Order: sequence, then structure tokens, then C-alpha cells
Amino acid sequence: MNRPSLKDNKPELIGMQSTRPEIDLIYQQPGKRLNATGMESGIVISSRIRLARNLAKFPFPNRATETELHQIIDRLKETLAQIPLMKNAYFFPLSELSENEKVLLMERCLISADLVRKPTPAAVAINPEETISIMLNEEDHLRIQVLQPGFEIHKTWEIIRHLDDELGKRVDFAFDEHFGYLTACPTNTGTGMRVSVAIHLVGLALKNELKPIIKEKLSSELTLRGFYGEGSDILGNILQISNQLTLGRTEEGILEQVGRFVNNLIEIEKETRRSLLKYKRILIEDKVFRAFAIFKHARMITSVECLELISYLRLGLELGLLKGFSLEEINHLMLLVQPAHLQRYVNKTLNSADRDLIRPKLIQEKLKLEVVN
Amino acid sequence: MNRPSLKDNKPELIGMQSTRPEIDLIYQQPGKRLNATGMESGIVISSRIRLARNLAKFPFPNRATETELHQIIDRLKETLAQIPLMKNAYFFPLSELSENEKVLLMERCLISADLVRKPTPAAVAINPEETISIMLNEEDHLRIQVLQPGFEIHKTWEIIRHLDDELGKRVDFAFDEHFGYLTACPTNTGTGMRVSVAIHLVGLALKNELKPIIKEKLSSELTLRGFYGEGSDILGNILQISNQLTLGRTEEGILEQVGRFVNNLIEIEKETRRSLLKYKRILIEDKVFRAFAIFKHARMITSVECLELISYLRLGLELGLLKGFSLEEINHLMLLVQPAHLQRYVNKTLNSADRDLIRPKLIQEKLKLEVVN
Repeated sequence: MNRPSLKDNKPELIGMQSTRPEIDLIYQQPGKRLNATGMESGIVISSRIRLARNLAKFPFPNRATETELHQIIDRLKETLAQIPLMKNAYFFPLSELSENEKVLLMERCLISADLVRKPTPAAVAINPEETISIMLNEEDHLRIQVLQPGFEIHKTWEIIRHLDDELGKRVDFAFDEHFGYLTACPTNTGTGMRVSVAIHLVGLALKNELKPIIKEKLSSELTLRGFYGEGSDILGNILQISNQLTLGRTEEGILEQVGRFVNNLIEIEKETRRSLLKYKRILIEDKVFRAFAIFKHARMITSVECLELISYLRLGLELGLLKGFSLEEINHLMLLVQPAHLQRYVNKTLNSADRDLIRPKLIQEKLKLEVVN
Repeated sequence: MNRPSLKDNKPELIGMQSTRPEIDLIYQQPGKRLNATGMESGIVISSRIRLARNLAKFPFPNRATETELHQIIDRLKETLAQIPLMKNAYFFPLSELSENEKVLLMERCLISADLVRKPTPAAVAINPEETISIMLNEEDHLRIQVLQPGFEIHKTWEIIRHLDDELGKRVDFAFDEHFGYLTACPTNTGTGMRVSVAIHLVGLALKNELKPIIKEKLSSELTLRGFYGEGSDILGNILQISNQLTLGRTEEGILEQVGRFVNNLIEIEKETRRSLLKYKRILIEDKVFRAFAIFKHARMITSVECLELISYLRLGLELGLLKGFSLEEINHLMLLVQPAHLQRYVNKTLNSADRDLIRPKLIQEKLKLEVVN
């Protein structure tokens, strides 16, 4: 397969074709982030760090002219091509992606909702493992993101620090001795760092303790989102914990703060699961087997219900109640049931009602579910 | 089996024993009322008529002394024993039934909730087919009830009229030339007749039209209840239509009025099912197959959910989506999943949470559900 890369002369031309092999490659895999090999992967889906960076010699994207935005993209594309970690990376100018392709990347957390809607020149570079994505001309010139499976914020930090260093050797970042890295929005100034951990708290949810625990434990320095990013609801009992502050903090301080909080949540979740298994085993079995039964036999499944049921499959697999599939396959399924992925699956535009009909077909095709007797 | 009857010298003595063969016989069968052989039995569960009657020479039960109440029971028991339709009928003084046995009879619509709670001397005679039950010393001296499967109000009327005539030949009823039959509560005076039809409107429910249609169509002369009688919610999409008025109406007028309304509802329900099958087939399949799946795999089912799911099984059987069981078995299941029946099933007292755990076991044992491919 002719895999386009930063080293091709005009890799973005492929973007003009109606079939995009690189988008297909992305579509077909769960991405290394979701291969369930990281620490605590029974509870923590993935860890993510992003750094906001800007080039010293250009205005921030919202102030730059179209010509400048193109210059920024050209300059950074050239720079990225020199960095070993970005070898074989895909490079997509956003203007050359269809609406569905953009949304598909967003559903995989590879680009932001803002970038999908951006009318001005922007681009993204993504490594084939989908562990690195670098957005160009989103809110800042660079939004560097590293994703890792499981609870791996320190490993993630090592990778992104290396990437940041490699970039910093080749371009001048906007940096102030006093404030740190300068960003378009002051809330990102300083470290420009956001650490996020996606954590599956099905035990707490089954005990109706998810919201109270979070309310009690969450400090004002941390923030909480759904799995699908800013403004999203908590769906499928997965939430993302992130740091709120970037200014006046060291990178290590932020890692330590998020890490401590997540470790604490993991312990509470483990204890809750143990106690549920001991005292409410039938409640758990009921939820798991109902999810199994509905996935096997339903004809219509909404996205919200689907993520809820996936949450119970995940639990059923961990507890040895279900078999025939892996945690990685469930993680992949979480991507596949989303709108743009479903449209890619059937290769046509689907409205919300159509998607509800396709979802069970996809699940029944992709997931070999069995009850352990 | 030694079946106790009105002709036994002391049949009620059996009621003192810890195992009651006659209650077991009742428990084990759906009762002829639910054998799904009547007219329109795909939509109408059963038809019921009751007549309120009182003996001329005794005060109404709420005014009678305990001695008088016993005299009434003795007198009527003797009379009932002479009536051919009551041959082999069971006779239960309420005081000799356990709480669970009383509730079990109530769950089968053979006695009323009022009779279960009655502290004063009362009794019930029930024919083995469970199509006739005659309560003694409920609100009136006699509450004669005839039940038939399907939409059969005229056949039901023929039976109950015959029964009423046979009784009337042997005892003096409290009757006034001007008012008609006299009753403890004036709302029953006149004909003393209530005609009820239990009708399964799953199509209207699936289209969210159940309540609007009823509101639009129901005249002030008719009344609406859930399947389990006065004050009960509409559960499992089954509702009971009854006449409101008994005074100043002829029996034929009441039958005609209820009959016309039910016929109209049957037509609307049939048309709704046809239209759903044509335009929303997947919605129906989804409901039917989810019900199937949950019954096969759930570990906990509440009574409310259970009746809702039974409603979809009924529809699935009618539409040929499910097989392996009969409409009569579903009708029997509707009885078996109720509290007193569940307690009889496991032979012990169960609280509400226990019952939710037993319900799926019973269903999985009793009902052989299969999907039609």
C-alpha cells in the first residue's frame, strides 16, 4: 500500500482523491492508544498530554493573515519532516479533508472540534500509531499531543518532552522568561501543558457514587470532561481528568497533581468493584448479561445507550463473565460506533435514526460475544 | 387427586392444612379465562361481568353482625351447592386461607383486594375452570363474577344471567321495583352490573397514542383501569374498560355501550399495528427481540418491566417473530410473575428485591423462547 508521508513530495494531493488510503488505515485500526497494554488498562483507557506552542516570529493564528497561516504550515511541515518521531507520519491540510474525514479524526481525539470547524488554513500531522498528533493553526500555531494506552502519564511526558525539544531545536518558540510559553489564550500560558487521563469508573457509576465522589474529590485545580472532550457529557461511565492551570506550575508539578488524583480514583474504583462483586454480584451480572443480550438481539441502538452497554461489556470481560473478544476490540468498537466512523463503515451519509439502525449490525459483525458458562 | 367441592361435608377443613391441593390446582393452570381461545384473543385478553346482589332478609355486610355474616355464608353456600354450574366448585372461607393464598387468588382476579383485607366473615366459591367466582360478604352479600377468554361479553352475559336466575330461584334478592337491585354502595344499585374487558393495546402504546386515544374516546359513562383492578396503573399495555353507570340502564344497554367502545378500540389497535408493521417494522422488531434477549439473559427483572416485556412477547408471537411458546403460556406467565405466585413457586416468603431475582429464573424455566429465523 502506498502510504503517504511527510517525505512524499505532495502527500496532501492524496487528500483530493475520493478514497484516502491513510484515512482507511486509521479507520481500520484501534490506534496504539487503545490497545489496552498500558498500566491499569482495566480501568484507565488512555493518557494524553498536549503542549501549546507558537512560533516567535508570527502572530497567533487568530491574528495572522491567510498568507502567514500558509507560511506557518509550510515552515512547520518542513520541520516535522526532519524529526525522527514523525517519520512516516500522515500530513493532512484540513481543507483537503471531507467533512466526514475531519469528524472521523475528531472522534479519535486526533483533532479538536475547533479544528473541524476552522475556515482558515490549518493542518494536522499524525503518526501511523496515532500516538502523536500535531495540529497546526488551531488556537495556537502548534498543538502537540501524545496519547498512550493505560495510565502512563510519565511515559507520555517523556515522549512529548522529546518531541518538544526536537521542535525547539529547529524553530523559535514564543517564550517569555517570566510567563513561560506564550499562547493565544492566557489560560494556556506558562507550561502550555494539559495532562488528561480517561478513566472508566463503572463501579462507582453502578453504585450511583460517580458524581458525589467527583464532586467531593475534585479540586479547583483539576477539571472533568466526558471522553469526547470539552463540553461533552460523561458517556459510558468514562471521564477525563485534566489539570486546569498551566501558569505558575512546573510540568512535574502538574503531572504529580493529576497522577495523585487519578491514583486515588483508581483505588476507590477497585475497592468499589471488589465490594460490588462481594455484595451485589447479581446486579453486576444483570448489567453485563443484559448488555450482551441487547448487543446480540437489538435492532436499534442509540449512541448514548451503546456507550453505556460497552461499559458493561468491558466490566464483563474483566470479571470473566463474557468471552470471545478482547479489551482492545472493545476500545476499537468505542470508536467505530460514532457517527463519522459509521458513515465510513457503510460508505454513505446517515442521519441519526439511520445510525441507530446500523450500530447493532456493526456490533454484531465486529464483536464475537459469548457468555462464559 | 381428592378435589374438594361444595358437596363435601367439610371441604373448608382442607383449608387448615398446610398444603392445599385446590390452591395448587389453581396455581398450576392459567385458568380457562386465559386460554386464548376467545374472539379477538390477539388483542382482547378476557371479558368479565360481575353482578352485585344482596339477600332481602339480611342487612348489608357492613351493617351485619358477625352472626348474621356467618348465617349469610351458610345460607349461600348451601344454595350454591344446588346450582349445576357450581358443581365441583372450590369453597374457601377467607379466614382459612393464608395471606399468600388470598393474594394469589386476588392476582388471578378471583377475589378483590377488599376481600383480602376484610377482617369480618367472608368466603369465595370458585369453579375449577376459574370462569366463575362468587364472593360472599365483600361489599355486598354476593359479588357474582364470570370471566371468559377473549372478547366475549355476550357469552359471558349468558352465563352470568343463567347463574343469577338459578340463584334468584332459590333466595330472595333485595330488589326494588323503581331502583332495581339494591346494593351497599349506591353506585352499584340498579343492574348491579359491571362489564369489563381487558385489552392489550401494544400498538397504540408503541406509537405513544395510548393515553391520547383513551382520553379522546372515553365517554364519562365508561371507566378505565389497569389489568389488576381498581386503582392499578396501566401495566404491560393492558387496560380494562368498564361501564361506570349501573342505575337507569338496562343490562343490554350496558353491554351494547361497552361492546361498541371496545370494538372501536380493537379496530384502531389493528390499524395501528398494520401501520407500524408497514412503516416502523424495525421499531417493533427491536422491542420484540430486546424483550426476548432480556428474558433469556437478565438476572433481575422488576414486575413493571416484566409486564412490559411480556407485552412485546405477545406481539412477537402474533407477528411470527418468536416461537416455542403459546399465547396461553404467556397469559399464564402474566399470573406467575406476580408476588404471591412467585412465593408459591419457591415456597417461601420473598421481599420485593428477592422477587426480582426469582422472576427471570421462573421465566427461563417456564418459557421456551426462540427467535424465528
